Amino acid sequence: MLAEDIKNYTVKQLEELAGEIRKNIVENVRGCGGHLASNLGAVELTLALHKVFDFPSDKLIFDVGHQSYVHKLLTGRDLSLLRQKGGVSGFPDPEESGYDPFVAGHSGTSIGLGIGYCAARDAAGRSEKVVCFVGDASLGNGTALESIFSSEQKPKNFVVVLNDNGMSIDKNNSAFFKAISKATAKKRYRKMNTFISRTFKETSAFGKYLRKVKYSVKGWLNKNYFFERCGFKYVGPVNGHDLSELCAVLENIRAIDEPVLLHAVTQKGRGYAAAEDDPARYHGVAKGFGGSENAFSAALGGIMLERAEKDERLVAVTAAMTDGVGLSEFAEKYPSRVYDAGICESFAVTMAAGMAKGGLRPVVCLYSTFLQRAYDQIVQDVCISSLPVIFCVDRAGLSGSDGKTHQGLFDLSLLRNIPNLSVYAPKDCREFAEIFDYAYAKGTPAAIRYPNGAAPELGGTCPVSEALWEVLSKGEETVVLACGARAVTRAMQAKKLAGADAEIVNCRTVKPLDEAYLRKVSKRRLISFEEGYAEGGFGSAVAEFYAREGIPVRLRILGADDVFVPHATAEEQAESLHLSAKDLAEALGKQE
Amino acid sequence: MLAEDIKNYTVKQLEELAGEIRKNIVENVRGCGGHLASNLGAVELTLALHKVFDFPSDKLIFDVGHQSYVHKLLTGRDLSLLRQKGGVSGFPDPEESGYDPFVAGHSGTSIGLGIGYCAARDAAGRSEKVVCFVGDASLGNGTALESIFSSEQKPKNFVVVLNDNGMSIDKNNSAFFKAISKATAKKRYRKMNTFISRTFKETSAFGKYLRKVKYSVKGWLNKNYFFERCGFKYVGPVNGHDLSELCAVLENIRAIDEPVLLHAVTQKGRGYAAAEDDPARYHGVAKGFGGSENAFSAALGGIMLERAEKDERLVAVTAAMTDGVGLSEFAEKYPSRVYDAGICESFAVTMAAGMAKGGLRPVVCLYSTFLQRAYDQIVQDVCISSLPVIFCVDRAGLSGSDGKTHQGLFDLSLLRNIPNLSVYAPKDCREFAEIFDYAYAKGTPAAIRYPNGAAPELGGTCPVSEALWEVLSKGEETVVLACGARAVTRAMQAKKLAGADAEIVNCRTVKPLDEAYLRKVSKRRLISFEEGYAEGGFGSAVAEFYAREGIPVRLRILGADDVFVPHATAEEQAESLHLSAKDLAEALGKQE
Repeated sequence: MLAEDIKNYTVKQLEELAGEIRKNIVENVRGCGGHLASNLGAVELTLALHKVFDFPSDKLIFDVGHQSYVHKLLTGRDLSLLRQKGGVSGFPDPEESGYDPFVAGHSGTSIGLGIGYCAARDAAGRSEKVVCFVGDASLGNGTALESIFSSEQKPKNFVVVLNDNGMSIDKNNSAFFKAISKATAKKRYRKMNTFISRTFKETSAFGKYLRKVKYSVKGWLNKNYFFERCGFKYVGPVNGHDLSELCAVLENIRAIDEPVLLHAVTQKGRGYAAAEDDPARYHGVAKGFGGSENAFSAALGGIMLERAEKDERLVAVTAAMTDGVGLSEFAEKYPSRVYDAGICESFAVTMAAGMAKGGLRPVVCLYSTFLQRAYDQIVQDVCISSLPVIFCVDRAGLSGSDGKTHQGLFDLSLLRNIPNLSVYAPKDCREFAEIFDYAYAKGTPAAIRYPNGAAPELGGTCPVSEALWEVLSKGEETVVLACGARAVTRAMQAKKLAGADAEIVNCRTVKPLDEAYLRKVSKRRLISFEEGYAEGGFGSAVAEFYAREGIPVRLRILGADDVFVPHATAEEQAESLHLSAKDLAEALGKQE
Repeated sequence: MLAEDIKNYTVKQLEELAGEIRKNIVENVRGCGGHLASNLGAVELTLALHKVFDFPSDKLIFDVGHQSYVHKLLTGRDLSLLRQKGGVSGFPDPEESGYDPFVAGHSGTSIGLGIGYCAARDAAGRSEKVVCFVGDASLGNGTALESIFSSEQKPKNFVVVLNDNGMSIDKNNSAFFKAISKATAKKRYRKMNTFISRTFKETSAFGKYLRKVKYSVKGWLNKNYFFERCGFKYVGPVNGHDLSELCAVLENIRAIDEPVLLHAVTQKGRGYAAAEDDPARYHGVAKGFGGSENAFSAALGGIMLERAEKDERLVAVTAAMTDGVGLSEFAEKYPSRVYDAGICESFAVTMAAGMAKGGLRPVVCLYSTFLQRAYDQIVQDVCISSLPVIFCVDRAGLSGSDGKTHQGLFDLSLLRNIPNLSVYAPKDCREFAEIFDYAYAKGTPAAIRYPNGAAPELGGTCPVSEALWEVLSKGEETVVLACGARAVTRAMQAKKLAGADAEIVNCRTVKPLDEAYLRKVSKRRLISFEEGYAEGGFGSAVAEFYAREGIPVRLRILGADDVFVPHATAEEQAESLHLSAKDLAEALGKQE
């Protein structure tokens, strides 16, 4: 395995390997889609870590983990089926390799995991090294900040590698990173670098070196104040692409047992010209380096542009996902009306509550999976006071190749138990716009969920109203209560496939339910159909309604199984969970 | 109203009023229970804020809000029924008074709310002042840190008052507060105080004053680095009990439009000797200054003490609630085995995942309402990898006098949709211990939920096992599926009250359900009964099971209505939600 072999590599050999790895990653991401720029930026750092530390005895904990491709290659994982069914995941996963101690995918957890792991290690009297690899953007996340500030005494044999590619600084106006970035302003960085190299060659005693760096840095820049107050020896900034420097510094770090924060400056997209020039565009890409087409996200962009013109109270709140949620154009046209909170979902929601109270009409645009980070803020800050905040919940349902950590399967059960919150699931983009306007006019908290990918227009002429579902296709036998764009689309397909006389209902308001309709059809066979965990989801709401009313029914709930869903296409995932049109068609056939 | 009157008060008059307010608060908290020490520490600060600012035109946003009693008194609210049904809430609430812009209860939200409010204010061209009142412990919370670090440009006319009573420093080993506290070490604080007074008298130009303070403070202590980097003018530390100084400083702050962080040092419990001596004990008290008796919390303490002796892997993780969750004695005996994360629930859970991976067996002890802050970490960090972490979910169900923000009504629906997580609800403390041992031996993620208050032992001899419910009282007619201690207790009472031949079942495993039993009784009338929102909760799980199995049933779900529940006793709350034994008895009567 490369991870073993490179321990004997010279710097020159490592540099050659770095080139090969870059080619491999570019090729495979071109073929499979994935995170490109961040991995290209992490090549030398990852190589140096593997050369110096003894993984998997030592532990390498990636934050978010989208930058773990190099690590995967070194540890014997083939990227040719990256993020495809049966191939390797785009994120670390212990089920995939013993070299991955933890699952990752969401931001800010590596330092907390590392601190916890060290506590266990120390309690057991072991002394393996624990290395957290964290990007600058993740460091501003609340969980990361809580972890950093948790104690002024950090564990021994604990290294945090701050992979500072400066991206977070473009993306948001964060004070935390500005403070760091000021230290790495070009001139000073060069000066510092020379200083470090010089000092480093002069002495082999790392303690002495560290002290020198410390005092100098303190005197000059004061930026290490953050980390030293938090119990880390601050080392850096170092050039994150200079293998010679990286290996030497890491050897020294490894030789001491003090907690160290190594600040490495890297270039996102390094070694692939197009990605170097436009790292944001090459952060995450689809196959062939294209963008992914997400009809609902695009629709949101259009909705916001149009409504913003008419109502100057309308603003957008995002969490480092302005592009992903479809707001690039909106942000260009109305830069002062987009509030990007960085990877800080809880702050984003709390800020939105403040905005709503002050008279704005914030639309909080988050992926379903990241909204989980702000559950309590949705409850306390928005919903108790019933403030007019609209949550646009993107990537709801099966989200495809990002795998276990990124599915949007929780939101229906999470959101529908919150008093004062209306929950909607439009069947297509046209209805999304109608629901948006309806919720906006209503002026109370609302969540609108929709999936990624394509979204055919499904027709239908029933205007959106309170608790009003739409019968999309009449039928005399089984009633299919379809919730959300994909479920409705598949239900229509399933009806054809099964040749069944089923009634297909677009259950676009999850909360409140269309109780009148449910009463009307209570004697018929019912199938609820949704892309979300069955536990507590939409079908569960239907079952509750009938129970509350004392009406015994023949209701079958089709939702996601109670398992975490690995990477594959959303269609493959639906098949594996028996949520395809064919599965529904079979269910229709069986019941008739 | 006092808030208006005091604008013309002299400092002497204010000081007299401060004394009266303290008496009022001590008296009413003695009578009603509530937060004592924190409010006594906030008297002068609140008075000075009300004298200088024009609330409610200006906005006063409390963080957590347990320290808002003085504010309530000044704004015409009578504390004689504090936290009692029909009396004032123990936390701010816009429904109670126009002087409260936001609901509070959970930590760390005031600054984010303030930033959002300022954005709306500025967009509308208004210029009212926004004042956030935040304690030192809250500042370490992830949401607060995200807000503080959100931008290096803070809004104008924005003041954060840091009420630093140094308590968080005793409670946890946080680096953030150590950094602050070092600045207020006695000697330096006195020096600084003298300096501030002197400087202040010398000049009326606040800008000049501020500059002087700034440079001096920077030179001496460097502590303001945090806040200045984050866009605040740092002012302080000031003596938070010196009304003359406070009013003068605040007048000056009000006169400028720059964002200011005012660092006030206060003494928790100030003016009430017992509380001054032991502020932790007088932080939150029951009527007559007693402690509240929580049988399950006490039981947890016993369980942990006993198991810790046998298994050295067992550790406790709490979030600033070591006493509240019943671990005082455990912490005393095993100080190195309690990890108090401060008010950082998400870090607590992430750290626990790291501990479990490293070989420890962490028991994360949180109140149900605060667990909402760590939902995503429970999913990603603990459950995807199925790590052996036990969540002891205290104050689950109706939690009584803390009101809307503190009810434990979400946890069942939140937790039961997470794959790999077992969810339990013991009927009494003896069963709690059995379930704890069962879950511990099982070695996968588990949540055990239980209410506050008393908990009678209910007998029963059915040993705990996987998916096995206990028939507590046999009967031939309606089956009551009771979930959790209070529900089971009331179900037994209801059976007597109704004189019904009902079967009372202790549904102690919420996930998995006892499917064999459910199949057996599917033909009978069923009532599910729980203290939690009906939406997605336990009864909903039962309804889903039958739907999945294609079994039409007569099931009635009794759970909490879809509303936020204000302060009252837990019993009164149960009555208002029709969840009392009498309500269940009626339901039993009706159905027969």
